[in-house]
Amino acid sequence: MNKKRNRHPVKTYFDGILRSDRLLLSQAITLAESNLPADQKLAQELLTQVLPHTGRAIRIGITGVPGVGKSTFIEVFGKIITSLGKKLAVLAVDPSSQRTRGSIMGDKTRMETLSNDPLAYIRPSPAGNSLGGVTRNTRQALLLCEAAGYEVIIIETVGVGQSETAVHGMVDFFLLLALAGAGDELQGIKRGIMEMADAIAITKADGQNKQAAEQAAAMYKNALHLFPLSEKKWNPPVVTCSAYTQEGIRQVWEIITVYHQQMQASGYLLKNRQTQSLQWMYETIKQGLEGNFYNHPQIQAQLPVIEQEVINGQLPALTAALHLLSLFKVS
Amino acid sequence: MNKKRNRHPVKTYFDGILRSDRLLLSQAITLAESNLPADQKLAQELLTQVLPHTGRAIRIGITGVPGVGKSTFIEVFGKIITSLGKKLAVLAVDPSSQRTRGSIMGDKTRMETLSNDPLAYIRPSPAGNSLGGVTRNTRQALLLCEAAGYEVIIIETVGVGQSETAVHGMVDFFLLLALAGAGDELQGIKRGIMEMADAIAITKADGQNKQAAEQAAAMYKNALHLFPLSEKKWNPPVVTCSAYTQEGIRQVWEIITVYHQQMQASGYLLKNRQTQSLQWMYETIKQGLEGNFYNHPQIQAQLPVIEQEVINGQLPALTAALHLLSLFKVS
Repeated sequence: MNKKRNRHPVKTYFDGILRSDRLLLSQAITLAESNLPADQKLAQELLTQVLPHTGRAIRIGITGVPGVGKSTFIEVFGKIITSLGKKLAVLAVDPSSQRTRGSIMGDKTRMETLSNDPLAYIRPSPAGNSLGGVTRNTRQALLLCEAAGYEVIIIETVGVGQSETAVHGMVDFFLLLALAGAGDELQGIKRGIMEMADAIAITKADGQNKQAAEQAAAMYKNALHLFPLSEKKWNPPVVTCSAYTQEGIRQVWEIITVYHQQMQASGYLLKNRQTQSLQWMYETIKQGLEGNFYNHPQIQAQLPVIEQEVINGQLPALTAALHLLSLFKVS
Repeated sequence: MNKKRNRHPVKTYFDGILRSDRLLLSQAITLAESNLPADQKLAQELLTQVLPHTGRAIRIGITGVPGVGKSTFIEVFGKIITSLGKKLAVLAVDPSSQRTRGSIMGDKTRMETLSNDPLAYIRPSPAGNSLGGVTRNTRQALLLCEAAGYEVIIIETVGVGQSETAVHGMVDFFLLLALAGAGDELQGIKRGIMEMADAIAITKADGQNKQAAEQAAAMYKNALHLFPLSEKKWNPPVVTCSAYTQEGIRQVWEIITVYHQQMQASGYLLKNRQTQSLQWMYETIKQGLEGNFYNHPQIQAQLPVIEQEVINGQLPALTAALHLLSLFKVS
């Protein structure tokens, strides 16, 4: 993954991205993923420069439990988008990919048709062993792809840790793919995910599974009614689809375009993106502050001892926290 | 609220609390609420000393929308507990009480019978204008009450901000009070609250409202089935009750005692409290780090400008965060 590479001046990346040069785009994304301070500095300059050229894509997050058929769905869904002449980028937030060696999109051949499509750009999961790092890399890749003129960005995630929340925080539309099951359809879905969904698509609705999929859809519709309508005043539709027969997949795209128009008209789209940017800024600050703290040698030496004292009931949690904070300040 | 008071030596508070002296208990809680560094230091010493004498109460959180009848419920519920000879303390997390001048328990007369009960100790909402401060004060009051021999602690909250999450993070059992409505019962309930409930009690199930309450209970039962069973393997019961006829309220207490025995036997009770303590420690560290950062003069000067640049799309959120973090480090 970390091949030796040449660094270009900012202008080279910038010009390349603006004329949609795929090689320079890929190199810029790799640069932004680097942890070397010099690369980071260069990447920040580049991002600041491309920023005025970003923001024009529809940003779509797609999640679902393993086995739901995310790659197959995106393959068919993506072809619908490119067949409309639209440029599509597919990215991923997958904090597990380091461990499992590419559980999603690690192997490009899983989206063979799409990866050979000149209008599609598929970027495998970023390297990184923390969700924070992976999130940062995907957000930067998103901006760089937008600047390169990609009109639809799909961000795929597998439900690991808080990755859905991270993806939800960087997209306009959040799609949950779900499977029909044996009456316990919702059991596999993590708490809070359903409330984030702007639409739910029941996959594999073909052949003998079609009826079960319809039943699952009815159940999800029912469950969604229990949630209060959110600020954006959007009732998340529930549909069934099949990547095999291709039924229902175009409908998902239609739902997204309706949503996008509605949210643009109401001003929610812009407002939501501004909120997302600020949240990301505050989240990064929080991570930075905590990183400095927990990497501090004295904290690293004392924390395990103090944690144990709190667990054993020898030290009140507040006292422990104040003590650790005072160590950090003094030195 | 902030009457001039004499500070005692730690031993005076300690001895007083251990012999369940109500005046010294109240003074110790007030001490722990103080923001003066000298008071804080004294309070931390006291808390560390009483810690081995804490942990023996059943800690119950109670929440529900305004109008659900929390005070009336607690009045009747509390009398059932004291009639069993058990000592009961009632505390509150209510970040709104400063603004509304005591929306819950500000006026002790709202629990007139209970407040005259020698086995009951009612402590009005702590002062404080941030949820963090109010949470800290209530957590400390809880420990002090436990050390003073209170066997049941009720922590009441009104659904303001994240106060339910804060209360859920300090109790063993979380009770949601709900009202029967016109088919949209769940609309008033904030996202995520239902998933935290260990039981739901539909209040005001009397007279003409009884049938509607039963229907609401059925609906909640149905809705709860949609959530996956949590780690503690407990199916939250849904009951109806009336503070007026007193029907169903004893049942809530019975549910809690069954829950408590089960969680003690499984080890979940202890494990959960250890997790809660560590979470509180980490939360306090986070608050401390962010407090130092956002109160720093240079950050306060620059933040509004930079925030606006992020909103306007002139500065990437990450660049903004890194810039602010560098300002903080240098000075």
